[in-house]
Amino acid sequence: MIECVPNFSEGRDRTVLEAIRAAAASTGARVVGLSADPEHNRAVLTLVGEAETVLEAAWAAACEAVARIDLRRHRGVHPRMGAVDVIPFVPLAGDSMARCVDLARRLGRRLGEELGLPVFLYEQAATRPERVNLAEIRRGQFEGLAAKLADPAWQPDFGPAAPHPTAGAVAVGARPPLIAFNVYLNTADVTVARRVARAVRGRDGGLAGVKALGLLLPETGLTQVSMNIVDVARTPLPAVLELVRREAARWGAAVLHTEVVGFLPRAAAYRAAEWALQLPGDLGAQVLEDAAGLPS
Amino acid sequence: MIECVPNFSEGRDRTVLEAIRAAAASTGARVVGLSADPEHNRAVLTLVGEAETVLEAAWAAACEAVARIDLRRHRGVHPRMGAVDVIPFVPLAGDSMARCVDLARRLGRRLGEELGLPVFLYEQAATRPERVNLAEIRRGQFEGLAAKLADPAWQPDFGPAAPHPTAGAVAVGARPPLIAFNVYLNTADVTVARRVARAVRGRDGGLAGVKALGLLLPETGLTQVSMNIVDVARTPLPAVLELVRREAARWGAAVLHTEVVGFLPRAAAYRAAEWALQLPGDLGAQVLEDAAGLPS
Repeated sequence: MIECVPNFSEGRDRTVLEAIRAAAASTGARVVGLSADPEHNRAVLTLVGEAETVLEAAWAAACEAVARIDLRRHRGVHPRMGAVDVIPFVPLAGDSMARCVDLARRLGRRLGEELGLPVFLYEQAATRPERVNLAEIRRGQFEGLAAKLADPAWQPDFGPAAPHPTAGAVAVGARPPLIAFNVYLNTADVTVARRVARAVRGRDGGLAGVKALGLLLPETGLTQVSMNIVDVARTPLPAVLELVRREAARWGAAVLHTEVVGFLPRAAAYRAAEWALQLPGDLGAQVLEDAAGLPS
Repeated sequence: MIECVPNFSEGRDRTVLEAIRAAAASTGARVVGLSADPEHNRAVLTLVGEAETVLEAAWAAACEAVARIDLRRHRGVHPRMGAVDVIPFVPLAGDSMARCVDLARRLGRRLGEELGLPVFLYEQAATRPERVNLAEIRRGQFEGLAAKLADPAWQPDFGPAAPHPTAGAVAVGARPPLIAFNVYLNTADVTVARRVARAVRGRDGGLAGVKALGLLLPETGLTQVSMNIVDVARTPLPAVLELVRREAARWGAAVLHTEVVGFLPRAAAYRAAEWALQLPGDLGAQVLEDAAGLPS
């Protein structure tokens, strides 16, 4: 089984989102969820299924997004470079990263050749080290794409060396599961959220398995520490939240609430409970439904 | 499906515990676990299966315990009155409390008539209000049983009005799922554990869904707040822990670690993570394995 979690640069127009969902579902893949965020103006589609089915579903959804989303008119607080911005393939239990790399390369070739999108392969599918990190690929965003693609170091892995006029470019990759975890702060001062993000993310000395951005949410007048937990097994979510809470408190801000965008592995929920409850053992071994093999 | 969670007054002798486990397993019931605590000198067997199978397994395990455990020589920090001390039946999803009450009464009758045990029906199976609460039935423990059974108000529901010489008496009942949750404190002063227990339990003004005892653990020189979370849906485990932590801190004590004895419902693990993570929504709806119908 393979999971695919394409991100689209539309988080407001339900007609467009339903069209993307329907295109994916028409292939027979299981659409586990579609999570849209109006302030990010972005949506995350979660697909699960057999490899070839998921590949077709990701292709169908990407075609719909390229046909319907115009980046020239897109405003949102989350960085983005394309109508279909990023398409990661994730191996689920029993499947392999190698298969996901193969899917990413096949989908990337097709997106480049048939839709005319510049395609960057990233993470485990990357063709060079400086393209492993999605943030590096996306730096400059849609508005900076033409200049970036003119740089010989940023020739795409597939497709033309010029942005698609309305759909920009896309990153396609293979990676382990991650958790998109956002923490809302009760301050409108984005410098606080940015300082907190810097303190908690591994790149700047924080938790090794955490990527983080500080964002202003203009609609609500709040700020958000928007994180990817990329080392799910070794990064307890409540430990991340505690660090965010303490760093925010340094600047007089408090945590309003949090959110998980899309889905998280069940084991991460159990690890969170273990941490919060000071349980030394494996909570999963003590969950009745798991131990007794009962239906969920 | 029915769960049955008999408690036995033996937590040290592996031969006795294995005999009890084997007796239960020989009936075809699923023995999900057997959790023994040497300081409590007590063990919890968790059985799951179809109603009649679980009934036979509980009977077989009780026979083994009555044959092998001698309460006259039993020492342990947890209150107890019988070799097989308490036998609760619990309805799992799709099954009913009425069926569990019926099982409790049938097993109680058989334990009284065939093993000569005084039997008290409790909780949903109780025959009078003062026998709903297990703590009331067990008050006086094994050593006080003869006097208690001489009181007309404490005639057993089944079996003789005198203690079994080695096996005491047994409480058999039907109840919703509960979580046995113990918190270890870094103090040898049992008055601290008792004050904390009093502050957190519903009977004395604490959390309505919590029962609690403060216990001294002589082997380790620690103390324990030993709790039953009886209103699982409305009592988040991390909230219980925070209250214990704050009450213990009043007396200068801290929480070393916690334990769940036996099993807990998966939903309780998810509720714990939600509370700890300040997630306003239903985490279960965002667990990939649940949402995508993947195997556990």
